[in-house]
Amino acid sequence: MRQHQALEALQSQLNYQFNDNTLLEQALTHRSAKGAHNERLEFLGDSILGFIIAAKLFEIFPNADEGQMTRLRAKLVKEKTLAEVANELSLGDLLSLGGGELKSGGFRRASILSDAFEALLGAIYLDSGVKSVNQVIDSLYQSRYQKLSLSMAEKDPKTQLQEWLQGRQKSLPEYEVTRSEGQDHNRTYWVQCTVAGANLSTEGQGSSRRKAEQSAAQKMMEQIKHGN
Amino acid sequence: MRQHQALEALQSQLNYQFNDNTLLEQALTHRSAKGAHNERLEFLGDSILGFIIAAKLFEIFPNADEGQMTRLRAKLVKEKTLAEVANELSLGDLLSLGGGELKSGGFRRASILSDAFEALLGAIYLDSGVKSVNQVIDSLYQSRYQKLSLSMAEKDPKTQLQEWLQGRQKSLPEYEVTRSEGQDHNRTYWVQCTVAGANLSTEGQGSSRRKAEQSAAQKMMEQIKHGN
Repeated sequence: MRQHQALEALQSQLNYQFNDNTLLEQALTHRSAKGAHNERLEFLGDSILGFIIAAKLFEIFPNADEGQMTRLRAKLVKEKTLAEVANELSLGDLLSLGGGELKSGGFRRASILSDAFEALLGAIYLDSGVKSVNQVIDSLYQSRYQKLSLSMAEKDPKTQLQEWLQGRQKSLPEYEVTRSEGQDHNRTYWVQCTVAGANLSTEGQGSSRRKAEQSAAQKMMEQIKHGN
Repeated sequence: MRQHQALEALQSQLNYQFNDNTLLEQALTHRSAKGAHNERLEFLGDSILGFIIAAKLFEIFPNADEGQMTRLRAKLVKEKTLAEVANELSLGDLLSLGGGELKSGGFRRASILSDAFEALLGAIYLDSGVKSVNQVIDSLYQSRYQKLSLSMAEKDPKTQLQEWLQGRQKSLPEYEVTRSEGQDHNRTYWVQCTVAGANLSTEGQGSSRRKAEQSAAQKMMEQIKHGN
């Protein structure tokens, strides 16, 4: 059961008091539960968050270019970040979920938490407008804004490597999984990156194929640039 | 040369008067030209537009689900639509472009026009806030909002077909270009769509491979659903 006290605690943490409590209730109701659920609010909140964060990045990084701002924003609005914010607000304890989701631990799932956080922002917007959402986001993101730097807006190693090679009319890198080890939920992948034209190859490892590729690409960039 | 009069005419058409004219000038300056260009403003304007349109769709379609609103928004913010709005505002005549872009007719290019329109919205936001941008977008999109209906939010035929087949555990459709005719800039493609499990095949045509595939998928849906 959702507790009145817990909803009060949430609003106090947000430093925002809802005029219309049904909006707050709806934001915390997953599609799997009965009654008005939060999917439409999530759509709204997602678009508000994207705008508020864009405007803030524009302000705090007057020299960032469009690509850098786009990459910084992606970090701030990705599911993992939103689920972190949702956890700081203990949204999981407040969610209404249907039986199936409840049993399978849906209140801990990043996608459900992140959606609920976006829906909460949408609800605040409907309840009292852009300015209130802006204040709430500013306060929740304060520490994240402070940790940001333009160096975090660099392209990922695979993109960097590809652009570097393309800019020099060299053949593109190839990635191949050479082996993997461990159980499904705890697997390690090894990937070999080869640049045919340069006659170079590197190996990277990671907990997913993608991570292993990025690691191999990173090493390739280092080899090419510094010859080590 | 950009004319003072033309800038006045634009502002009158927008029903918005800039306090800071340098923002207006910057919004109309492509990266290829000298001076402060519009890429950062475009980033800002893009996010504002996404939010304003989302909020509007939320309001005018109280029964639309998240997916429908997402697809309707995509129609309203895609490059082609934005370039149309930019053309209604004659933005092409007002753009500052570098020599290369000027020669190659950049002022007519959809991507450049669409970017300039987004930058204009970003400039209005910086000049006087969300409310002003909202009014400008509302007025420019009025006729487009009126033409919208939920039936336009349907998924495209290929997606519909795939989901229909997946929902019935049937094998997925295959698409194959069977022939193409005409010059590069005016080519017609024929694509055959085959659903192995159902022992059916249809043919579609279009000015691109994608369009021909959609047409073939549309016909396949009709065959499957209505047996014609």
